[in-house]
Amino acid sequence: MTMMNETIKSQLGHRTIRKFKDRKISKDIMDLLLEVTARTATSTGMQAASIIRITDPEVKESVANVCGQAYVATAPELLIFIVDQYRNSQIAKEKGYSPKTARDMDRFIASFTDACLMAQNLVVAAESLGLGTVYLGSILNDIQRICELLSLPDLTFPVLGLALGYPDQDPQLKPRMDMSLRVFENSYQLYDSYLDKIRDYDKEMSSYCDLREPGKYLDSFSDQVVSRFSYASPKENSILKAIRKQGFDTGINKDDQ
Amino acid sequence: MTMMNETIKSQLGHRTIRKFKDRKISKDIMDLLLEVTARTATSTGMQAASIIRITDPEVKESVANVCGQAYVATAPELLIFIVDQYRNSQIAKEKGYSPKTARDMDRFIASFTDACLMAQNLVVAAESLGLGTVYLGSILNDIQRICELLSLPDLTFPVLGLALGYPDQDPQLKPRMDMSLRVFENSYQLYDSYLDKIRDYDKEMSSYCDLREPGKYLDSFSDQVVSRFSYASPKENSILKAIRKQGFDTGINKDDQ
Repeated sequence: MTMMNETIKSQLGHRTIRKFKDRKISKDIMDLLLEVTARTATSTGMQAASIIRITDPEVKESVANVCGQAYVATAPELLIFIVDQYRNSQIAKEKGYSPKTARDMDRFIASFTDACLMAQNLVVAAESLGLGTVYLGSILNDIQRICELLSLPDLTFPVLGLALGYPDQDPQLKPRMDMSLRVFENSYQLYDSYLDKIRDYDKEMSSYCDLREPGKYLDSFSDQVVSRFSYASPKENSILKAIRKQGFDTGINKDDQ
Repeated sequence: MTMMNETIKSQLGHRTIRKFKDRKISKDIMDLLLEVTARTATSTGMQAASIIRITDPEVKESVANVCGQAYVATAPELLIFIVDQYRNSQIAKEKGYSPKTARDMDRFIASFTDACLMAQNLVVAAESLGLGTVYLGSILNDIQRICELLSLPDLTFPVLGLALGYPDQDPQLKPRMDMSLRVFENSYQLYDSYLDKIRDYDKEMSSYCDLREPGKYLDSFSDQVVSRFSYASPKENSILKAIRKQGFDTGINKDDQ
């Protein structure tokens, strides 16, 4: 296609990398990647998201334990993106204003969105430089532990971990559902049978071999869906309690709830 | 810097574009951008986020009304990214499994994250092709209205709007806080005075002129923070109720809350 360029070629080649070479990412590159996060769009310009860069091997090990993924401990770079309404609420206080709305869940959601946009912007930049990345949603396995480890103050919250380094593996491109099933025009489209619609995709998925289990092929997508829904995390559905514990107003115990 | 490339150059040049040329984005380009979203990292491979593409001028107008931004109605492309646990829960049901955990807030959060990552991946691809973009967090001004307009079923939820087109304006790069204030090593760093730390930035912000109000310079950042915190949306902090209404288990009314 004529509109293809290096950026999009790199984006279309995205694979999760879980094994990294024993090679540091230079300070210049890290500074550049962080500059890219600074330039990311941010809700109402508030920049209410921050990053904790984990360099201490013990802290890395602890994060790896929360994630349940040993490779996290050896990643050359490990970043934790966080909701951060703390900084701006301190700024407001210094200006003599008591920012009650800093605790609102819509601010939390705006910050959470900002943190995700920053993370993906950084990922695209990193991959354009030949780095590999893996997102770690699994930092939320034990939110309380992460908050303690990183000394996260009131009005902050962990969103997503990201490990980076030079790839030491070359995984297959993972099969994806056709976007015709995920993009709708003007209103959400319901289908009578999704299994019919994903029949080919279900087969294609069974030809994918995850490098974490070499020689073993994945289940069909529909089987993966069932198995994922069967999985209850150790602290199932506790995320709102954790959000409240970090100072946000989840509305729980309020009269109107 | 030697590691600079076209991708990162484009990312560092990001500006929000709110005025578009009267020129369509070709089908080939839209297909390519949607393919980029398909290749985006997704939590546990579940692809539990979708996109509603608004092509109907009346629906566009209605979304613009919710956003309170007239220019949204004339954007060549308007996409709404959504949390989508509906599709996979239907797949599970067809397989004879009743997916109770589809309603868990941690699934909501994983889907929400997926939707944001897709959006930013698409933005980088679009900007690399010379397109301009504006995120519309303001679709959440009236979540109920958006859900109705787009016929969003149970277990879906609007995350973020995105308008795209060929830029018909050339705004300044908006000043950003130095990342040293937003990136911390190993643990969150508290400062005694944030106003001290952002003194230069506060000044720099006052030299920025928003094209929405030509000739008028912005308030200092700290004044913007206070003014943003003073702003209470018409349906303040109602987002959790809206999430519950869309079928997710917000834990409200539960014994353990």
